Amino acid sequence: MEEPKKIIIDTDPGVDDAMAIFVALQSPEVEVIGLTTIYGNVYTTLATRNALHLVSLSLSLNYIVFSFWEIAVEMLDLMGAAVRSSDTSLEIAGRTDIPVAEGSHVTITVCTKLRIADFVHGTDGLGNQNFPPPKGAPIKQSAAEFLVKQTNLYPGKVTVVALGPLTNIALAIQSDPEFVKNVGQIVLLGGAFSVNGNVNPAAEANIFGDPDAADIVFTSGADILAIGINVTHQVVLTDADQDKLAESSGKLAQYMCKILDVYFSYHHDAYSTKGVYLHDPTTVLAAVDPSLITYVEGAVRVQTVGITRGLTLFYNKQKRFAEVTEWSDKPSVKVAVTVNAPEVVKLVMERLMNS
Amino acid sequence: MEEPKKIIIDTDPGVDDAMAIFVALQSPEVEVIGLTTIYGNVYTTLATRNALHLVSLSLSLNYIVFSFWEIAVEMLDLMGAAVRSSDTSLEIAGRTDIPVAEGSHVTITVCTKLRIADFVHGTDGLGNQNFPPPKGAPIKQSAAEFLVKQTNLYPGKVTVVALGPLTNIALAIQSDPEFVKNVGQIVLLGGAFSVNGNVNPAAEANIFGDPDAADIVFTSGADILAIGINVTHQVVLTDADQDKLAESSGKLAQYMCKILDVYFSYHHDAYSTKGVYLHDPTTVLAAVDPSLITYVEGAVRVQTVGITRGLTLFYNKQKRFAEVTEWSDKPSVKVAVTVNAPEVVKLVMERLMNS
Repeated sequence: MEEPKKIIIDTDPGVDDAMAIFVALQSPEVEVIGLTTIYGNVYTTLATRNALHLVSLSLSLNYIVFSFWEIAVEMLDLMGAAVRSSDTSLEIAGRTDIPVAEGSHVTITVCTKLRIADFVHGTDGLGNQNFPPPKGAPIKQSAAEFLVKQTNLYPGKVTVVALGPLTNIALAIQSDPEFVKNVGQIVLLGGAFSVNGNVNPAAEANIFGDPDAADIVFTSGADILAIGINVTHQVVLTDADQDKLAESSGKLAQYMCKILDVYFSYHHDAYSTKGVYLHDPTTVLAAVDPSLITYVEGAVRVQTVGITRGLTLFYNKQKRFAEVTEWSDKPSVKVAVTVNAPEVVKLVMERLMNS
Repeated sequence: MEEPKKIIIDTDPGVDDAMAIFVALQSPEVEVIGLTTIYGNVYTTLATRNALHLVSLSLSLNYIVFSFWEIAVEMLDLMGAAVRSSDTSLEIAGRTDIPVAEGSHVTITVCTKLRIADFVHGTDGLGNQNFPPPKGAPIKQSAAEFLVKQTNLYPGKVTVVALGPLTNIALAIQSDPEFVKNVGQIVLLGGAFSVNGNVNPAAEANIFGDPDAADIVFTSGADILAIGINVTHQVVLTDADQDKLAESSGKLAQYMCKILDVYFSYHHDAYSTKGVYLHDPTTVLAAVDPSLITYVEGAVRVQTVGITRGLTLFYNKQKRFAEVTEWSDKPSVKVAVTVNAPEVVKLVMERLMNS
């Protein structure tokens, strides 16, 4: 059997981040060797707290709860209290096997005001469920340090799945010239290629969060696969799917079902859709099974000023321009164009319900 | 029979401008009540000269040459000399029925260096044929004055077909608040909607020529139909079509055939296509017969700074954004999305060959 692919998830949990982390942890094809945190759906401090919460929750279900069914059920009902007080929690047992490294609190150019999407994910980032604080703590390394060290430790073997603004990844690139060679692939959720953005008509939220960092990442020369909202808007978890999660005995399914309400409300209001977009789970699954998407290759630049600040612009290198352009000598990246949406939804549902 | 639609063509001839003007003058559905000139494919001074040349040439063929077949044939062989010396020319006869009003020599913000696409159309704008100077002269009104006066004279009845950078149209908008109400429709060749540009990956040439003017036009509230290169790149005149033009006895067909060589060479080099894009003729025909295209409606803004300067961004007004955006309160315009390309090519060929 092939060795599982090592992945680090850079995340700003976030309702769909939670779902993505759960899916990754339930996917035997990959081994999550760490989480790094970033602002976006919430501020970085809360992202770190939520990452610790999600990891401990997920691990506790994976390794212990199956042996303690009744405790598990109780834990689900009294999630917070259980995490705080029960010995069933790996986190409490000091066995948070998956390190969490805290990332940047500010954009790479520092002076930008952060845009926090708490109106999408709830003020706590997890559907306003007010979970108690986790007992675990982040490791001492910063996110960028962790990214550099792990990719140096396993050169070419680590896939970074970036689910938030790209500040940590850009810092890793800037801090070590070897990072772009050592990292296996960066699979990132970001951009709106040939479609309107979701922050404004020009920009997708993660790129808008730190356009300067995003431009550094896209032009770095690393092996990059960008999953834009042109792709993730094809992947919809419907109201009916949420009902199925509710009826499932899967613990992660039931947890997700609860925290999804706020996320569904936002989508009903903003898009008039009867369902939610699976941005982050799609991105994780693109790393788990690249055959789920198809992509094109070319140069991507990010507009960093003006009314289209945060816009991602892909150039397929077909047209030969008369003049040198800002795209001319830039390395190619991969930009997803299609996705096997039914299969992604099926995999997400299965991996949540079989938990 | 319905009264022909009055149109004013704002133009920077230009090989495909020449074709567009010929097609318009050969279209009984419209009455060309004037040309206004602008920089773009050539500088404005040369655009005016070329406009006068094309009008006189076309009118001479239309009204006189059919009675003087042999002179006409000679005229074609010795085009320049004929225009200069023969009484067959309406221009020489002082009957240049279609006024030409010279437009702006600079962008609306003045300080921008002009980008002139002589490498696409030849240094003379008309395929390096070195036609002699026309004897006619532009009228005393500026392009913007002419646009304001004519639309005021026939309120709601004049369609402005804008084939170059939008400086003149923006000046008309700024000089008279009534212009946007008086103009029937502005059908403009401009923008690259959800596709790469043709100046660089972000920008289409006409919008890049004066992004500030373009943003004024798109947000003016006038009835606007934008034909972008996402549409005109669907309309290809092939090498075989050029051969057919050469074999035709149509005088405009033969004229076009000669000046097209430079334009074909550019396309072969830049796009590796065996044909040329009919940007301007498609735009004229969209005004002649709106059923040739379909469009969507929404707000368009133009990025005026940075690496995507000249980018056009369409917002379909579907997604409800959490924050006010730069598109929020802007009037809707029409943006073409499909075109009946075979019919456009057929009409262009017919109207050139039956001349």
